[in-house]
Amino acid sequence: MPFTQKEITYLRAQGYGRLATVGARGEPHNVPVSFEIDEEHGTIEITGRDMGRSRKFRNVAKNDRVAFVVDDVPCRDPEVVRAVVIHGTAQALPTGGRERRPHCADEMIRIHPRRIVTWGIEGDLSTGVHARNVTAEDGGRR
Amino acid sequence: MPFTQKEITYLRAQGYGRLATVGARGEPHNVPVSFEIDEEHGTIEITGRDMGRSRKFRNVAKNDRVAFVVDDVPCRDPEVVRAVVIHGTAQALPTGGRERRPHCADEMIRIHPRRIVTWGIEGDLSTGVHARNVTAEDGGRR
Repeated sequence: MPFTQKEITYLRAQGYGRLATVGARGEPHNVPVSFEIDEEHGTIEITGRDMGRSRKFRNVAKNDRVAFVVDDVPCRDPEVVRAVVIHGTAQALPTGGRERRPHCADEMIRIHPRRIVTWGIEGDLSTGVHARNVTAEDGGRR
Repeated sequence: MPFTQKEITYLRAQGYGRLATVGARGEPHNVPVSFEIDEEHGTIEITGRDMGRSRKFRNVAKNDRVAFVVDDVPCRDPEVVRAVVIHGTAQALPTGGRERRPHCADEMIRIHPRRIVTWGIEGDLSTGVHARNVTAEDGGRR
């Protein structure tokens, strides 16, 4: 599993994030999405009502590099931001979405984490940044 | 001004978003940032303590395409997401940041909106998506 228990708890509590992909002309795309964690495979799974026709899905089909951010601001003054940033590769899968969420399209995006950067997640809202690469031993994709 | 009054109200109330840029190898980067709206120029301005050395700043200096998302989830069940997505070009400016926020680095990023996509902002939390290009008449960059 590439995520720590604290990261899993945080990701589950938030439940949605923002997926950045890159389009055919090298332009970034960025959009809020709901997601689930597949603990068996150590992946992030993104489903949606119109997934197959969405820009993010078409971008991933041509360029598998993604950056996915889950964050929130638990305190405004002084401003405290917590975040998990997942850099990785993604698959644009033709099936599996409807099985996970019946009201969604069958297409889905599966993110394989390669590098995880977090701040404010390790319990103390410290501003320290934690960054690490995901290895095959963590359940990362070979 | 490229933004409607409702968009400005929403953007100001949120105060932070996620900036997607593209790196030298075509990989996306995505990170939460605070921002301000410059009403005179119709731009989004992003400052930070370590701006000049940040990945986002270096990415923008080499590839000016950005996608900036401001969103929140006002209701969890049923899930309602509100969002303003700004596609545009950005400048990696050497000065101006410290003048805006004294504790920040002097470097700053200025986003010029080219296309704005919103949902849930027009007062009724409707799921309708509003999308439009920014023209020179709106204050867009020529």
